[in-house]
Amino acid sequence: MKKIIHTVFILLISIQMVNAQRAPRLSSPDVDKNNNVTFRYFAPNAKEVLLSTEIVAEQIAMKKDEQGVWTTTIKKVTPDIYPYSFKVDGIEVADPNNTYVFANERFKRSIVDVPGNKPLAHSLRDVPHGKVTYRYYDSKTLETTRRVLVYTPPGFNMQDKTKKYPVLYLIHGGSDTEETWTKVGKANLIADNLIADGKATPMLIVMPYGNVRPGPMPDFTKDVMNDIIPFIESNYPVYTDTENRAVAGFSVGGGQTLNIGLTNTDKFSYIFSYAPYTATREFAQNFTNWNPDAEKINEQLKLFTISIGKDDFLYESVKGNLAMFKEKKIDVEPIFVSGGHTWMNCKLYLTQSLQRVFK
Amino acid sequence: MKKIIHTVFILLISIQMVNAQRAPRLSSPDVDKNNNVTFRYFAPNAKEVLLSTEIVAEQIAMKKDEQGVWTTTIKKVTPDIYPYSFKVDGIEVADPNNTYVFANERFKRSIVDVPGNKPLAHSLRDVPHGKVTYRYYDSKTLETTRRVLVYTPPGFNMQDKTKKYPVLYLIHGGSDTEETWTKVGKANLIADNLIADGKATPMLIVMPYGNVRPGPMPDFTKDVMNDIIPFIESNYPVYTDTENRAVAGFSVGGGQTLNIGLTNTDKFSYIFSYAPYTATREFAQNFTNWNPDAEKINEQLKLFTISIGKDDFLYESVKGNLAMFKEKKIDVEPIFVSGGHTWMNCKLYLTQSLQRVFK
Repeated sequence: MKKIIHTVFILLISIQMVNAQRAPRLSSPDVDKNNNVTFRYFAPNAKEVLLSTEIVAEQIAMKKDEQGVWTTTIKKVTPDIYPYSFKVDGIEVADPNNTYVFANERFKRSIVDVPGNKPLAHSLRDVPHGKVTYRYYDSKTLETTRRVLVYTPPGFNMQDKTKKYPVLYLIHGGSDTEETWTKVGKANLIADNLIADGKATPMLIVMPYGNVRPGPMPDFTKDVMNDIIPFIESNYPVYTDTENRAVAGFSVGGGQTLNIGLTNTDKFSYIFSYAPYTATREFAQNFTNWNPDAEKINEQLKLFTISIGKDDFLYESVKGNLAMFKEKKIDVEPIFVSGGHTWMNCKLYLTQSLQRVFK
Repeated sequence: MKKIIHTVFILLISIQMVNAQRAPRLSSPDVDKNNNVTFRYFAPNAKEVLLSTEIVAEQIAMKKDEQGVWTTTIKKVTPDIYPYSFKVDGIEVADPNNTYVFANERFKRSIVDVPGNKPLAHSLRDVPHGKVTYRYYDSKTLETTRRVLVYTPPGFNMQDKTKKYPVLYLIHGGSDTEETWTKVGKANLIADNLIADGKATPMLIVMPYGNVRPGPMPDFTKDVMNDIIPFIESNYPVYTDTENRAVAGFSVGGGQTLNIGLTNTDKFSYIFSYAPYTATREFAQNFTNWNPDAEKINEQLKLFTISIGKDDFLYESVKGNLAMFKEKKIDVEPIFVSGGHTWMNCKLYLTQSLQRVFK
């Protein structure tokens, strides 16, 4: 974060290597001690530059100075991490001076970190840090080699077969990637902090790539059950019993979580679905005319929650999901919070789940 | 790569979640079996869209269809990985349909992977894969916590103190990040392939964040010597003798490599400098009126190379560096290749070095 905040300092090198088309290095975004955030974008010939953020609902018209730098400041921002982008004469652009890009397949937005003056759930604190490891696994289901990110907690010892860990499988949103939960959701730092504070059980967090293109998307459920879980359980010292396996996910990943978890309650004791998107063929196949053995499922599941923000565009849809599960007599705990379909909420949902899983 | 090539398949979900401003999902870039690469960008209101790539020198004017999609195809592209971006009415934009973004602090370009029909040095092959782990370390020099990426080879066992590995410290270019050597340079896959083919010694590759902002940049040399190397050598089963320590880097990192390596020839036996940028205060301080004990240094160094492309904008500057080292009687091996100041060349330089280091 420091390096982004401080890019105002122009290095000799960056001047000398500038090519004609390249804009000057600007300090953007700038976050001051009072959480005022200033955004800057160089576009001398643009007619209009709007700032689009998840800090405020409306887009903000930026003002141009004599040097062609468009600027605006949002005052007293609540500390968190927010996506934003510039709309330059209608064209969405990530902030060229900000290294911190939202990991996503559909859009290229930047991220601004407003740290505030006391540590947040996701802050980089002076505590023991786990590791995030990029691995490849062979998916027989999808007939390709796919990437998976694995968080291992502080003190994890790959070779010590006597010390085993539980595993949370954590799935991103529809157009996100396997990196979104660490790069935007800060899952590794949230886990580091909760483990350091004694609020979470040391665990592995496995973050797969949840999209299957070309489809069919339901094959991801098979990929998780037949390829990813066996890969993890054969390569890491982890518990392989149901009570030490959990699945969670956001949006499309929240829907995948319901598909994966509820059709495999003999494999998962914990299901955490965050703002699930369920208007999918797989969900319809699984839960239309669903006739579950509720008593057995409720006995198998130690905790099943569905989290949703009151301003989430899926709020009504999720209330429908909750009603359906209740009607089927499935014990599901609704977690209603404020906020929308955002990664600010994702961090909150994960922080809540990590304090209740594997206990 | 597959997932990028196949994003043409429009998912129900991506339609339903589209918001008004969001462009349709397009397949861009498309690479066909003949290595023809098609780029697409949606901008119905744009007057001009240019494609800027490192495949060809000149920018290419794209053509708009009735749906407002701008398209162009570059035929028979030599298989490699190339940066590109769109210039939309003069504004540089990364490809919104391409997840694969160049890790850099100054610009947001996309990357197109042209795999070709036989594996390249950096191809993802069906060989044992090492791991890339994201770590944090405390830099006393810079008084902050910084990130470092660590490649460990296949079969690496963190806890087996009887099997030790040599270490290559690999530094990125001036506006790159600690991720550029893996995300753009594919250092991990190049190492996986060379190790599988018996052409490289299994080693750790440590990829730090080389920029210091706010300066002074020379502090990075101290960070490497006093913080990063001790962090690695106290946390990993690695050899700690000079003959098992190497340093390499590109551009600004190539200059840092010369500063770090040649002022510490008692610590490094291998120095690989790729297209070094040396117009820096640190370089001037170290090598103006430099009066080295050439005989001792040549005895300590097992291999010292400087690689440069004939079309690199630093070509003349590097020839000056080579002349200076020769004049000081330092044994340096020049490696002249074709090409410019590009990451295509970086992959080549690294591929060459990995086959000669620690042997």
